[in-house]
Amino acid sequence: MTFAATILTLYPEMFPGPLGTSLAGKALERGDWSCETVNPRDFATDKHRTVDDAPAGGGAGMVLKADILGAAVDHAIEQQPGAPILAMTPRGKPITQGRIRELAEGPGVTILCGRFEGFDERLFEARPAIEQVSLADIVLSGGETAALAILDACIRLLPGVMGAANSGAEESFEDGLLEYPQYTRPQEWEGRTIPEVLRSGDHAKIAAWRKSKSEEITRLRRPDLWERYEGVRDQSASGARRKNKEPDQ
Amino acid sequence: MTFAATILTLYPEMFPGPLGTSLAGKALERGDWSCETVNPRDFATDKHRTVDDAPAGGGAGMVLKADILGAAVDHAIEQQPGAPILAMTPRGKPITQGRIRELAEGPGVTILCGRFEGFDERLFEARPAIEQVSLADIVLSGGETAALAILDACIRLLPGVMGAANSGAEESFEDGLLEYPQYTRPQEWEGRTIPEVLRSGDHAKIAAWRKSKSEEITRLRRPDLWERYEGVRDQSASGARRKNKEPDQ
Repeated sequence: MTFAATILTLYPEMFPGPLGTSLAGKALERGDWSCETVNPRDFATDKHRTVDDAPAGGGAGMVLKADILGAAVDHAIEQQPGAPILAMTPRGKPITQGRIRELAEGPGVTILCGRFEGFDERLFEARPAIEQVSLADIVLSGGETAALAILDACIRLLPGVMGAANSGAEESFEDGLLEYPQYTRPQEWEGRTIPEVLRSGDHAKIAAWRKSKSEEITRLRRPDLWERYEGVRDQSASGARRKNKEPDQ
Repeated sequence: MTFAATILTLYPEMFPGPLGTSLAGKALERGDWSCETVNPRDFATDKHRTVDDAPAGGGAGMVLKADILGAAVDHAIEQQPGAPILAMTPRGKPITQGRIRELAEGPGVTILCGRFEGFDERLFEARPAIEQVSLADIVLSGGETAALAILDACIRLLPGVMGAANSGAEESFEDGLLEYPQYTRPQEWEGRTIPEVLRSGDHAKIAAWRKSKSEEITRLRRPDLWERYEGVRDQSASGARRKNKEPDQ
């Protein structure tokens, strides 16, 4: 099955762009995914092919017109009725690895790339299927680089794209923690050696060390993830206690 | 002054990629920014030009070698000694618009793109100037699409790149809130009209409406930002009260 990506963008030449090389490029050649673009400018109705206009109420920049974007979105929906529709905007809900995994398991995704001061709000009111999604707490010149990152994250999870089948299971965010530190040869570099435990061959000890390092780094760097992780851990621990008919402490 | 971007990547053909078109592309032509790549493979010492090796302690995937990456980083530092060095990794600190603004005001940035299972940890121990930075809570096939997003966010802030000088001041994250909804012509679309207040011409009323919409949407979509915003607001309010010698309530 081909994961079908459709990108609404004023800059179709940006796609597949960097995703035409490397692992994603090979997957594209194999037909693991496809990449179509829809240019809202093709749905403009005047001879200047206008897609934007000044913000109602004043202010700098330009706003993408609801009528033109609406027509472009409807066209994309007709092309691929089953696909989730994301609009990349800093005003959206932050994307998560869980959502990426859901997308990668589906038929594909349609992504609207904002530009200028964003979309006329009525687009979202009139087309409630559109999910407003944010990549990061930074402001881009448009949604295109965000769409590339989202697609990259989806494509690597498609069957057959990553070399090792289980590469991906033990990585950051999958268990609510950041990944443990990695080391490889040479054994010594600039006077620094690989931690002894990793050369012990004791798999249980290595797993325990990695887990504790994951927890340590998450606590230090991402108090937000750590808080959530502790909550889930405490809940499942008390659930397990109840199940085992152990007394609550 | 040219904002000098140096990207350490195994896929130099991905740069400037999508940033070679649109606003960023014009800015590149004008010399507002420059884009150099350094390929760690050029610093490999064996005939296969190996840059990675199996993880110490076992596990799937490959780890980028500290000796090779160290040599590549040292080369990049020599090329541009004053630039901050970011390593894109999901294990890093989340990037913020504040950090983007700092970067954009500086001489440039060097960005290390991870691949596979990431970097040998000793690289960060031995080169503490490297900031480990995360774009989003998703896992990419490599740091390249993240680097493109970070560069895009920096470039649009460079002097002369955005059309309107103040486009950028009133936008998401700049005041700790998401941006208010935007509208533009047509006045009516699919039975939906532009909110009355935006056509009132009353600038104070428009500003107040936009502020309240910003607060509402931030509270609903980003409780994390809202909590921080409320904290700052309460602090500055009590500061103002002390300054005005009003009694604390």
